[in-house]
Amino acid sequence: MADRPAVDADRLWADLEANGAFGATVRDPPERWGRTVRCGTDANRKAREYLLERMAAADLDVRVDAVGNVAGRWSSESADPSAAPIAAGSHLDSVPEGGIFDGPLGIYAALEAVRAMQDGVFEPQRPIEVVSFTEEEGGRFADGLLGSSVAAGVRSVDEALALEADDGTTLAAALEDIGFAGEGRLDAAEWDAWLELHVEQHTELESAGVPVGVVTDITGITHCEVTIEGDADHAGSTPMDQRTDALAAASEFVLEVERAAETRTETDPAAVGTVGSLDVAPNATNVVPGEIEAGLDVRSTDYDSMEHLVGVAREELGRLEADRGVDTALERPFDLEPTPMAERCRTALHETGEAAGIETLSLHSGAAHDSMYVAGVTDAGMLFAPSREGVSHNPREWTSKADCADATRVLAGALAELAGV
Amino acid sequence: MADRPAVDADRLWADLEANGAFGATVRDPPERWGRTVRCGTDANRKAREYLLERMAAADLDVRVDAVGNVAGRWSSESADPSAAPIAAGSHLDSVPEGGIFDGPLGIYAALEAVRAMQDGVFEPQRPIEVVSFTEEEGGRFADGLLGSSVAAGVRSVDEALALEADDGTTLAAALEDIGFAGEGRLDAAEWDAWLELHVEQHTELESAGVPVGVVTDITGITHCEVTIEGDADHAGSTPMDQRTDALAAASEFVLEVERAAETRTETDPAAVGTVGSLDVAPNATNVVPGEIEAGLDVRSTDYDSMEHLVGVAREELGRLEADRGVDTALERPFDLEPTPMAERCRTALHETGEAAGIETLSLHSGAAHDSMYVAGVTDAGMLFAPSREGVSHNPREWTSKADCADATRVLAGALAELAGV
Repeated sequence: MADRPAVDADRLWADLEANGAFGATVRDPPERWGRTVRCGTDANRKAREYLLERMAAADLDVRVDAVGNVAGRWSSESADPSAAPIAAGSHLDSVPEGGIFDGPLGIYAALEAVRAMQDGVFEPQRPIEVVSFTEEEGGRFADGLLGSSVAAGVRSVDEALALEADDGTTLAAALEDIGFAGEGRLDAAEWDAWLELHVEQHTELESAGVPVGVVTDITGITHCEVTIEGDADHAGSTPMDQRTDALAAASEFVLEVERAAETRTETDPAAVGTVGSLDVAPNATNVVPGEIEAGLDVRSTDYDSMEHLVGVAREELGRLEADRGVDTALERPFDLEPTPMAERCRTALHETGEAAGIETLSLHSGAAHDSMYVAGVTDAGMLFAPSREGVSHNPREWTSKADCADATRVLAGALAELAGV
Repeated sequence: MADRPAVDADRLWADLEANGAFGATVRDPPERWGRTVRCGTDANRKAREYLLERMAAADLDVRVDAVGNVAGRWSSESADPSAAPIAAGSHLDSVPEGGIFDGPLGIYAALEAVRAMQDGVFEPQRPIEVVSFTEEEGGRFADGLLGSSVAAGVRSVDEALALEADDGTTLAAALEDIGFAGEGRLDAAEWDAWLELHVEQHTELESAGVPVGVVTDITGITHCEVTIEGDADHAGSTPMDQRTDALAAASEFVLEVERAAETRTETDPAAVGTVGSLDVAPNATNVVPGEIEAGLDVRSTDYDSMEHLVGVAREELGRLEADRGVDTALERPFDLEPTPMAERCRTALHETGEAAGIETLSLHSGAAHDSMYVAGVTDAGMLFAPSREGVSHNPREWTSKADCADATRVLAGALAELAGV
């Protein structure tokens, strides 16, 4: 019996390629390989069916819960079937025109880890579950992290099933349609620990030349919906001194958010503030803008920084009301505090890397992941594989076969350690 | 025989109300009366058919040209039928959810002027033509001023007929569909002079308490299409100092345009600069904006001011390329120089007002009108009626019955004078 499960890089890669064919929009690897796998679509059905086939081939005991979360359990000969399992996985869905690694790598790496243990006659004391969460990316039914929010008990099954896509389709109907409306609720609180391998979606590993990142914290995220109302007037007949231009006011807001976030990084490098969306009404070249709706994204590993930046945004809106005569509003519909990863999981990942001669680096995640919700109910850890040029959510997203394999080796070793081989 | 044609305020108002019913979206006068009469739609057909009925009732000789422009000619008993006519009119089409005065007032005032002359047994030496131009507002087929551009020979009939709406319908097909595909080309160069009554769409008359404005110049208009390209990156995982945020760059551009236009008004009060439209891509709260498309509108009665403001815009884009690393482009697809109104027409309007005891005020038009094109081929004049609170392109657009009648009295008197009664 080997020290560590012997990951088969080719077998893993074959699964990633096979999965990448579902919903493929462009296929010219490694330069571009895009796919669109929205939750509950035909492409999502094919990707899910392939996963079930691969789980069955590895003799996993598969269940699908009411919101379409999939879990495949392996209990070794010497495992206690009633022991709390160690779980690992990620998601199959993608953003429109996304890449083939964001999500699937975490699932197929977990499956490969199990297969490597089976091949090596590892006999973990705890069952191991390979997990695929429903609708991580969001955009079709909810804002993202849907399946994990249900598995963590943050959102109820009924609430999730009632969510509607823009065309009125409910999640319940979409899952029924693709044959993945299961029963019960996958409960992440029943897991002893959880690990998720994901692509970094940034350049820190690539810049450092390190193949594996171990996540210290996932930043908290606040989303604010900002409205700025001025007066929509004729751009020709309204003199400059008689305008209440909502876009000019919004421009000051955008720049103040940027300035405040840049200043905050002097003491908190993880702090970011972004006005990512901005819609103008009536949005005609010849009309002074009357109303702006903007979306503000604020993140940090330090919740104080998030509060500070939202405070600056509110103050700036107040100043614009006073100085420019606009009416403003700020709603904060989404707020997640920073999530530290469990010490126990981080240590297992670093130690496995060290033992295997695979260098690891500590970093934080600025992106949200299902692990945020899972961490609320059990010990959670995350590891990152390098993203070429940091590109993600794009057909140019790429992680080399060697990097996928190295990260999977670390995942497999840590899983084995946590499961008690 | 009276000095001046005796305008029937009720008859004019009845036509405005009847026309306001076509495409009505909300009807709660005088607070709100909205209509949507896009060029070539069923509402436009009804409005046109009603105009033909009213022209026939006044014994006008009606023709419809190949682009749907309508002209109804009246020759008095003593007129020389071969003399160059005096023309007056405006447009029937509206913006979506527009008001009932913008356009129709100018047509039905001209028709009422003719009826008043007929009633008073005025016998102008020249024929008088009541004109309705096709697609003044633009938005369905072209950017506006379509019918007048053809009548002024700026655009060919074939070019106009080939224009396509978003749904692929050509202007030719739309006019055929509503029964207004006529023959030949209404030629504004054949007119001895042209007058257009329009609502002011601003507050200068209301503020001054003066019922009629005589337009000195129509401002020139430049439209620029501005593109700013940065890098679309993950709003969570991209540190502040590694971003090329296209929206932050665009915000500086918006504020610089505003600042430069405000400064220019110190020497040229008619100068205005507006970023009226702005589209963000990918426009997601959690993605650093990668690309901006913005529409810049620059106007003045002084073309030097327009050149100056476009120059400032170009310089600012250059600065943003250097300071923020964005790529930028500026196209200038639309540029019309300022248009002075003919001295002869302005004098006729002021003198008629004075003789009738109706105060007139000189002002410029910041809005574009069909008269801009007509002025290129014959003597043109414009007069404005007050707009309540300056509101236009909105169901709240309103001009009182008394104001409509006063402005029509000035129009009728000036028409009579120009036509030689």
